[in-house]
Amino acid sequence: MLEDWLAPKAAALESRGLTRRLRARAADEDLIDLAGNDYLGLARDPRVIEAAAEAVRVWGTGSTASRLVTGTTELHEQLESALAAYVGQESGLVFSSGYLANLGVVTALGGPGTLLISDEHIHASLVDACRLSRSRVEIFPHNDVDTVEKLLAERNEPHAVVMTESVFSVLSDEAPLTALAATAAAHDAVLLVDEAHGLGVTGNGHGSVHALGLAGLDHVIVTMTLSKAMASQGGVVLGPQVLRNHLINRSRPFIYDTGLNPPACAAALAALQILQAEPDRPMRIHTATNRLAEATGVPPAAGPVVSIPMPGPHEAVAAADLCLENGVRVGSFRPPSTPDGLSRLRLTAHAGLSATDLERAGAVIVDAIGQVS
Amino acid sequence: MLEDWLAPKAAALESRGLTRRLRARAADEDLIDLAGNDYLGLARDPRVIEAAAEAVRVWGTGSTASRLVTGTTELHEQLESALAAYVGQESGLVFSSGYLANLGVVTALGGPGTLLISDEHIHASLVDACRLSRSRVEIFPHNDVDTVEKLLAERNEPHAVVMTESVFSVLSDEAPLTALAATAAAHDAVLLVDEAHGLGVTGNGHGSVHALGLAGLDHVIVTMTLSKAMASQGGVVLGPQVLRNHLINRSRPFIYDTGLNPPACAAALAALQILQAEPDRPMRIHTATNRLAEATGVPPAAGPVVSIPMPGPHEAVAAADLCLENGVRVGSFRPPSTPDGLSRLRLTAHAGLSATDLERAGAVIVDAIGQVS
Ligand SMILES: Cc1ncc(COP(=O)(O)O)c(C=O)c1O
Ligand SMILES: Cc1ncc(COP(=O)(O)O)c(C=O)c1O
Repeated sequence: MLEDWLAPKAAALESRGLTRRLRARAADEDLIDLAGNDYLGLARDPRVIEAAAEAVRVWGTGSTASRLVTGTTELHEQLESALAAYVGQESGLVFSSGYLANLGVVTALGGPGTLLISDEHIHASLVDACRLSRSRVEIFPHNDVDTVEKLLAERNEPHAVVMTESVFSVLSDEAPLTALAATAAAHDAVLLVDEAHGLGVTGNGHGSVHALGLAGLDHVIVTMTLSKAMASQGGVVLGPQVLRNHLINRSRPFIYDTGLNPPACAAALAALQILQAEPDRPMRIHTATNRLAEATGVPPAAGPVVSIPMPGPHEAVAAADLCLENGVRVGSFRPPSTPDGLSRLRLTAHAGLSATDLERAGAVIVDAIGQVS
Repeated sequence: MLEDWLAPKAAALESRGLTRRLRARAADEDLIDLAGNDYLGLARDPRVIEAAAEAVRVWGTGSTASRLVTGTTELHEQLESALAAYVGQESGLVFSSGYLANLGVVTALGGPGTLLISDEHIHASLVDACRLSRSRVEIFPHNDVDTVEKLLAERNEPHAVVMTESVFSVLSDEAPLTALAATAAAHDAVLLVDEAHGLGVTGNGHGSVHALGLAGLDHVIVTMTLSKAMASQGGVVLGPQVLRNHLINRSRPFIYDTGLNPPACAAALAALQILQAEPDRPMRIHTATNRLAEATGVPPAAGPVVSIPMPGPHEAVAAADLCLENGVRVGSFRPPSTPDGLSRLRLTAHAGLSATDLERAGAVIVDAIGQVS
């Protein structure tokens, strides 16, 4: 049954060179890693590790149930308060992943009375959230505020939510947040900003919404993941208290999912505390991104990612393989994971990379691209 | 904006006595817990704790990226192999939650060419999965195999997936899996069984699909969560290798989500090893369920949950509050969390409960129900 159904699909992918395979990494690799999203270099910080280990001793290994039953520990509330304070929002609600946080907030606000207006480059989790919402959905050309204005003005729905990312995940460019927030306000709409790649990175770590003075506005909602700069797992929705209460009561991916596990809560909280105590870390990400962009001849990026267009999927994979052989792990993005159908190398810059690492990595990557192109 | 939009909704809920609030628990509660889903009593087992603590030291606190980038460690693969072997399946693929595992498998098999046929009592994550799938969806009356047969026979779609749970989450009753598997096979359809409450509980721990000799069939897929009996977090899809490969290539909630965090992988693996070394643990769950059912005068349950109907939501909450005051935590389920609109007390039985605990708990619950009814 499943064999007859799925094997031909697998063969079709394989013939186009698009089969994805998992490669397990070992614990003790001697590599320069430019593929993971541990932007602040904290996933192996002894203080973060110790906080997670202590949390399993004190709280146990799982949260044991939905957040509404026994799945809320004091640790969850501490984390929510600390995150909200750091990014300048009234409240935060932690989900077990960034993916579910996005599904959770959009479906709780969506429905026939709500128009969803989404940037065409939006992350898969927000695309799925739109599909799940039962709302009418309109997609606008990347960063095109005029179209947003037009869609908002022409709508019949009483409510509308405009969705974007502060720093986009693949191209690492920025959204025009100030203009979008003003347009949304003028049309009595909500602006939802996914800061998965902004937290710990932009606005000295506090994110772009905070940096632009948009945090705490009654029509601005922020979502973030704890799985990148926070070196952990989980997601969070930040905004006014009335939103948090609404999600607790109406968000199915919150209500019917087990709460985030204690070590993940504790790790994220410890990472946030380190970020506050060492506020120069975000700047080190930008320094690293700039060096990598310069070395590989692409324009500097707003976010933590350097995105290098490649001739095709085969070349992207071959270049990434060559880099790995030479001790540098880079990511490769192939359609359908890229917004414009272009294959890419994707380099993430971490606060922990030394000048020597960056020089070495730049040379290896340039060489690999030269060999495959 | 959000205030004007959401505050009236909150007021409407409040006036019907249906507002849900989070209550954080402390680390050192002196309570008999019958609300969490730590069925095997392993979330605070020193061996599970030590495995999680060791994993953060060896692997770091986060998996750092998508499973397809750097988010697959050797730990993930060990866990997948161990789970597959234990439940008798060819392969397993771990997701960051059971919720996303259900969304991930259903959307990867769904689409216009696939009919989804779902039991009316199915978990919220599978309901959302249906909505997200772009398939035609048909709901059948609870456990009604004849209707399933009819829907399968009359379909025009080349593919079909029948969805059920082995042990249902609220009522703790069983699905007619053997009949459903035969019906699915006769109509060239797939049977998807959510064993969230079966793993570690039914079939001596191996789950109902294994116990009934249905594991490893080419048209049977199992999903499980690691957040209940496995004392951790995460979810897994189990089935033939061709399914695993398909998910790696086509399942958006797998591809675009960060891999499960290392302490969660290690905790689940350690819990599974303890279950294998101490195979009497599942029986202790059933002993506890039977005692609680007897004490409270409800029929014995197939699964780990004793479900007690209450006159209404207010009574359910009041009884649960009374129990808590007397040192026993029980869950209360109110609409829309119950399949039949009835409010309930929900008691989960854990392998770790002593005979004295169970006697004490039974007395407290009976007394509380008497006081509010
Ligand atoms: C923009 C964006 N939003 C949401 C997510 C999902 O977060 P998580 O991996 O925590 O589920 C990601 C990445 O994984 C992302 O890049
Ligand atoms: C039947 C069922 N399926 C799936 C889930 C979701 O699992 P998780 O909490 O790991 O997301 C649950 C409970 O949470 C459940 O009861």
